[in-house]
Amino acid sequence: MTTAPAAFLADVLPDDQYSTAANDRDGHSRDWATTPEEAVEPDVVVWPESTDDVSTVLAAATEHGVPVTPFAAATGIEGNAVPTHGGISLDMTRMDSVLEIRPDDFQIDVQPGVLGSEVNEALERYGLFFPPLPTSGDIATIGGMIATNAAGKQTVKYGKVGDWVLELEAVLADGAVVEPGTRAAKSSSGYNLRDLLIGSEGTLAVVTRATLKLAGRPEQRRAGRVVFDSFDTAAAAASDVVRSGVDVAALELIDGLSAEAVNAYLGGSLPEKPMAFFEFHANHGIEEELDFCRTVLSGYDPLSVEFGDESAQADLWAARRELADATRAYYPDRQSTAAGDVAVPISRYPELIDRIHDLSDECGLPIPCFGHAGDGNVHFDVFADPDDEAEWARGVEAYETVVSEAIRMGGTATAEHGVGRGKRKFMIEEHGADGVRAMRALKRALDPDGVLNPGKVLPEPDVTDD
Amino acid sequence: MTTAPAAFLADVLPDDQYSTAANDRDGHSRDWATTPEEAVEPDVVVWPESTDDVSTVLAAATEHGVPVTPFAAATGIEGNAVPTHGGISLDMTRMDSVLEIRPDDFQIDVQPGVLGSEVNEALERYGLFFPPLPTSGDIATIGGMIATNAAGKQTVKYGKVGDWVLELEAVLADGAVVEPGTRAAKSSSGYNLRDLLIGSEGTLAVVTRATLKLAGRPEQRRAGRVVFDSFDTAAAAASDVVRSGVDVAALELIDGLSAEAVNAYLGGSLPEKPMAFFEFHANHGIEEELDFCRTVLSGYDPLSVEFGDESAQADLWAARRELADATRAYYPDRQSTAAGDVAVPISRYPELIDRIHDLSDECGLPIPCFGHAGDGNVHFDVFADPDDEAEWARGVEAYETVVSEAIRMGGTATAEHGVGRGKRKFMIEEHGADGVRAMRALKRALDPDGVLNPGKVLPEPDVTDD
Repeated sequence: MTTAPAAFLADVLPDDQYSTAANDRDGHSRDWATTPEEAVEPDVVVWPESTDDVSTVLAAATEHGVPVTPFAAATGIEGNAVPTHGGISLDMTRMDSVLEIRPDDFQIDVQPGVLGSEVNEALERYGLFFPPLPTSGDIATIGGMIATNAAGKQTVKYGKVGDWVLELEAVLADGAVVEPGTRAAKSSSGYNLRDLLIGSEGTLAVVTRATLKLAGRPEQRRAGRVVFDSFDTAAAAASDVVRSGVDVAALELIDGLSAEAVNAYLGGSLPEKPMAFFEFHANHGIEEELDFCRTVLSGYDPLSVEFGDESAQADLWAARRELADATRAYYPDRQSTAAGDVAVPISRYPELIDRIHDLSDECGLPIPCFGHAGDGNVHFDVFADPDDEAEWARGVEAYETVVSEAIRMGGTATAEHGVGRGKRKFMIEEHGADGVRAMRALKRALDPDGVLNPGKVLPEPDVTDD
Repeated sequence: MTTAPAAFLADVLPDDQYSTAANDRDGHSRDWATTPEEAVEPDVVVWPESTDDVSTVLAAATEHGVPVTPFAAATGIEGNAVPTHGGISLDMTRMDSVLEIRPDDFQIDVQPGVLGSEVNEALERYGLFFPPLPTSGDIATIGGMIATNAAGKQTVKYGKVGDWVLELEAVLADGAVVEPGTRAAKSSSGYNLRDLLIGSEGTLAVVTRATLKLAGRPEQRRAGRVVFDSFDTAAAAASDVVRSGVDVAALELIDGLSAEAVNAYLGGSLPEKPMAFFEFHANHGIEEELDFCRTVLSGYDPLSVEFGDESAQADLWAARRELADATRAYYPDRQSTAAGDVAVPISRYPELIDRIHDLSDECGLPIPCFGHAGDGNVHFDVFADPDDEAEWARGVEAYETVVSEAIRMGGTATAEHGVGRGKRKFMIEEHGADGVRAMRALKRALDPDGVLNPGKVLPEPDVTDD
């Protein structure tokens, strides 16, 4: 860094849009999963209030060689919004307006700081909704979801956040403003800069506006819970439901350990057994679809099958939202080695789950599992004692083995959380040296000085070293 | 060009994989819409038979500075596969195998030279299909569809070709082989190189394998035809059907002129009136959906509404496939100034159609319209006498006005045909100078020597001049 960022910011922004106060810097030094040792403070926090502000700040940062790390709700768990080299934390939460709703086109324009739940609240009167919200949708911002190409419980039916972005406004590293994408339903016009920016975690550009596609709220909704005797059976049943073509709108699994943990955390009374949670959306014939699902499930001898109104399962979804915190709280003397978020083709899901259980036995450590089974996605944590060096090493090895197995099965190291700092080490394994080399070339093309969120997505050596 | 390509090809390929014969060069000098004056012959035609062949040829071409233009069925109409600077025509049609079908994962792996219809034939026994095939799907290759991010009549329900590509194998300009994407249902891992390559028309890499996502064949199918008194009313009705959330699997419009032309071409007996063609796919409740559609349509006083079995409308779809040729044949003394393929947000569709009709009146030239109305997409041709300079200029101006109006409405200059040579002049208008500058940077990043399909996608000045 060649210039203290606050010095040039004073020339371009009013006083109330940046701060070097200790509490602001501290508040922008971590996300949900950052340990105290991993926290890195920015030198200054900047709150842009317009696209022009973002453009001005990025142009100045590039000119002065100051790193810029976009930041919003900090609900990420891979360090995506945590600085690695100080510089500017670009806090997008003041750009939080719903700009326009065009119900006839099933479209909404929003600023990046809008919360997912605020989008759906604004749409309710039109009978529309934004389907791919993550489980954290009521506290996470649309900008953050676009940055990581997030996904949620309804992704099994509707796809990921990126599938619902039609057009972006984004600011490049040099301050130029681009509008990739289109508001038409389809386009073959030019390179797909829009989808390149989606999931790039603010390392290629900073999104300042998004036009999202919407869906009509389904007229029929049902939900249900199915309890199994073993998680392997539950995983096999989940895989079969998807492979059979049942039209599920959500298909989540939790294992018995996770159920125990969430009961302990919330004082609930879930059966402490492996369970599948279902949702169904339709405009016609939802009962036929439930019957079809029951038929597939009957081949797996479930202990119970309860399908009914969505409201009857509200407590289940509330429990599901708390799972990450609940499992962490359940092992107060242990820590998760890293938040696991792998996905595999659905036919390989039972094999993956089986492998995780074997690894738990082999390393003698608990590995609770839950997640979006319908997408072949499992969230898992290997819990180990960080003060026991050998145990911790066994935990890390088990965790990394699961990721490698998922990649070997044709899957991915990170299904919905992004790469951030935490998953960088798997990029070459997943994409190959030439794939990562191509990604580095794209980074250099759009951010030649490496000011945008350095130290993220691409593995070491850093993008500036290649 | 520094070396005649045939010289170095002799070192790396057997004799039967390349040719400088006049008929081979001539056969690779044009696509469906190339006029004799626009045809450009390659210096040599190369038929790779493996990924290794493609890698070897690209590495050698880059080393020798020889342009490479990928080629397959040549069903494009924007010159996408027509050389601009001689060099190598890389004919992918020998790489035409279905490699693997994984019905449990709803996935198929294919080489790029496989025809769309061959994919669906291979899938029939599994009850699966590849939904986004273009109208030319029985003669166009999957590689070409990926190169242009093609779309078809079922895109209104299922999306574009790019939405159904999970993973690619592709060869970069220097011969490196990358495998962007994943076989898992979702991923947030690294930059989205896959979607950047899709629609890039072989200017960034050459696709050598694709893993496609599949859908289950719907249990219920219906089709129908609705005749209107005016095309403006037909467009308003089509827009309303989509905005009302009717679950259509196809919604095509043709105007009276096009109906006349197709009757003359095929000797058919379609009513020579504006018409909408519908398809519906469902597993349950299709009759309710038809009733919903009829209710929406009744607000537009259709002259007739015929919904029924899909087979009853087979002649309609056959006619639809011939429309482009039929309208051209209908005006033997005139030529289309360019193949129009604009799309706008669905709420603007009636306004766009209205504007086209006004322009036809103003310039005194026929502008038949048809296309994928459900996507807000219209194909149009302004027919003018190429030997009448003033008339031709009026035709070109009317054509360009339609494209500009579509862009102004938030739409796109090219909805499904790609940019090729023909649509380059609209790229700055649609994407802005900074958007195009970013695209040029991406091109330079992946193909620094500009050997891959030069003269396509990006507007003048050429990518090598910037």
